[in-house]
Amino acid sequence: MNDSRRIRACRHRLEDGEAVVLSPGPNLTYLTGFETSPSERHFLLFVTPGDEPVVVAPAMYAEQLEGVPAEAELWDDDDDPRDVLEDVCTAVGDPECIYVDDRMWAQFTQDLRSVRPDAAYGLASEVLEDLRIRKDEAELEALSRAGELADRVSMEVRGRGKEVIGLTEAELASEIDRLLTEHGGEEPAFETIVASGPNGARPHHHSGDRVIEAGDPVVLDFGASVEADLEAGTARYPGDQTRTVVFAGDPTAEFRAVHGVVREAQRAAIEAVEPGVTAGEIDRVVRGVIESAGYGDAFVHRTGHGVGLEVHEPPYIVPGNDRELEAGMVFSIEPGIYLEDAFGVRIEDLVVVTEDGAQRLNESPRRWSSQ
Amino acid sequence: MNDSRRIRACRHRLEDGEAVVLSPGPNLTYLTGFETSPSERHFLLFVTPGDEPVVVAPAMYAEQLEGVPAEAELWDDDDDPRDVLEDVCTAVGDPECIYVDDRMWAQFTQDLRSVRPDAAYGLASEVLEDLRIRKDEAELEALSRAGELADRVSMEVRGRGKEVIGLTEAELASEIDRLLTEHGGEEPAFETIVASGPNGARPHHHSGDRVIEAGDPVVLDFGASVEADLEAGTARYPGDQTRTVVFAGDPTAEFRAVHGVVREAQRAAIEAVEPGVTAGEIDRVVRGVIESAGYGDAFVHRTGHGVGLEVHEPPYIVPGNDRELEAGMVFSIEPGIYLEDAFGVRIEDLVVVTEDGAQRLNESPRRWSSQ
Repeated sequence: MNDSRRIRACRHRLEDGEAVVLSPGPNLTYLTGFETSPSERHFLLFVTPGDEPVVVAPAMYAEQLEGVPAEAELWDDDDDPRDVLEDVCTAVGDPECIYVDDRMWAQFTQDLRSVRPDAAYGLASEVLEDLRIRKDEAELEALSRAGELADRVSMEVRGRGKEVIGLTEAELASEIDRLLTEHGGEEPAFETIVASGPNGARPHHHSGDRVIEAGDPVVLDFGASVEADLEAGTARYPGDQTRTVVFAGDPTAEFRAVHGVVREAQRAAIEAVEPGVTAGEIDRVVRGVIESAGYGDAFVHRTGHGVGLEVHEPPYIVPGNDRELEAGMVFSIEPGIYLEDAFGVRIEDLVVVTEDGAQRLNESPRRWSSQ
Repeated sequence: MNDSRRIRACRHRLEDGEAVVLSPGPNLTYLTGFETSPSERHFLLFVTPGDEPVVVAPAMYAEQLEGVPAEAELWDDDDDPRDVLEDVCTAVGDPECIYVDDRMWAQFTQDLRSVRPDAAYGLASEVLEDLRIRKDEAELEALSRAGELADRVSMEVRGRGKEVIGLTEAELASEIDRLLTEHGGEEPAFETIVASGPNGARPHHHSGDRVIEAGDPVVLDFGASVEADLEAGTARYPGDQTRTVVFAGDPTAEFRAVHGVVREAQRAAIEAVEPGVTAGEIDRVVRGVIESAGYGDAFVHRTGHGVGLEVHEPPYIVPGNDRELEAGMVFSIEPGIYLEDAFGVRIEDLVVVTEDGAQRLNESPRRWSSQ
């Protein structure tokens, strides 16, 4: 029997006749410290309340699985993996209710359903979300380091001021990526966004060939992952920060006003964070500030998202989300105002909910001026 | 109505009452030329025989979707995306049989099943595999370029000979990645494998800190993606090549013998490729050569895999696969012999099935000597 605290917590949440079945991805990494990419090959971890976990995996993984706290059922290329699934379902006591990984590919859920057509199917998040949503000490330490790394790169890039004028967005994004890894990040946690001038009005812009000019507001949204030591294995936790900067020259009066509104919306939302407040209420605070300023229609996305093993995970800070905040939750607060053909402004920090409020994980300057 | 040839071919394969529902991934890119990463946000393309395709996507994608040949049903963060799925299912005529993307995350298949619990569910590959498995001219041109790129980097690295001695596996892997992009690749198509000495006995080794020594056999498995011009949009097609090289010094006699066996197995398999032969028969040829040499137990993986928008896709060259080869299929032939605590040998080329045989897409030297 393995002794991993997280696996024990998962098993403890299951009743007799239930099983969690995970695919490669953040849930599997959370429970076992094991990381591999999803592929066309059957790789499934079965967790039940009564038995040691069982991992169904291609034989080539034998050595890599030695540290994983689960019994390995390996299959060769001349086995039909569905036969192995059938055997494992029987071995773990024929669960009547199977919670499949939220990210499990349909080709594998279809196979599970074909060997156990009468089971009820749910999602693994119904079991694991409450565990993953409150970060433990090692996770908070890693997220805090990822925040400091983003801060450091943010300040270094901002400090370049007018040297940035004349670079393309893609060039600046590539420089940011270089700095993130140079200063200790494992890799960018997502595609770095450099959205200049009118491109800033697209929240998910892909950094391109546009040359950054004096007076351009530039949305800079980036972060890098850092390694955390888990009880078993390691895993990567991301940073995620956005600033909107004018590297040189004078922006328009409207930009200055909008930047102030976004900054105030963000401040008010973070001020409102404390245990017991709902995620939806935080979103309402942000929307309230932006609507009062007359820009309600220009805030086209949610206020924020949880951050952990995934860059986007619960809690989602969206309208109507009744989830109450609890100490240890970590999420972004990232209001934005997007004015088509003109510019965009977004300011984003990660915050951790504390016993009586919130603590920001990012502290780099939020002003638009590069000075 | 859109006029994309691939979407038309997909619709033509559907009967009344059927629908294909795709997630971000290779199937979606194949049909539309649109690429985005799977995420927690509902993004689903509905293709039915009678109507224009419909794409359900977050509102933030509005601009990016303008070139996609489908009607966009956008949802905001304050919508419940399941309501949108419900509406779209109704709008496309309430399909009784839904083929979901093989890679669709369970969280989305569960939502589809919750709005249409009585539909029958299959996998999109049942409809699309026969289209994707035979490559068209633009795809073959891209795969051929990706092959030339891998050849070029393979020859350049091999030519460094004794300069490689003293590098770690990770350093050599990073140099290979640099060369792949320097010579025009978009990015490595998968994690570059440099497995030296005894590490070569692990087919999926992660390049690590081991220093490459004189006399070490080194398995080098890499490739980069190149852009192809599709009818709509662009997409990336990968290279995938393996060589086993001794950069300096003398390997053991057993290594020389084993290298010869693997090379002969690969040659014999490629010789056997022609339309009408089954994938399983090609695997049998490889296994026959290796077993005759007494190394049957040391060939621990399949003979090969198809390559296209995915690095691993049908046809799989595995025991018992009855799929008949057809002109235009592209796959790897990659026999290997793995001797624990000693060394491994793998030789891999991509081949395209022609009207009367096979053509290799890789032509770099296969010998073990770096000279």
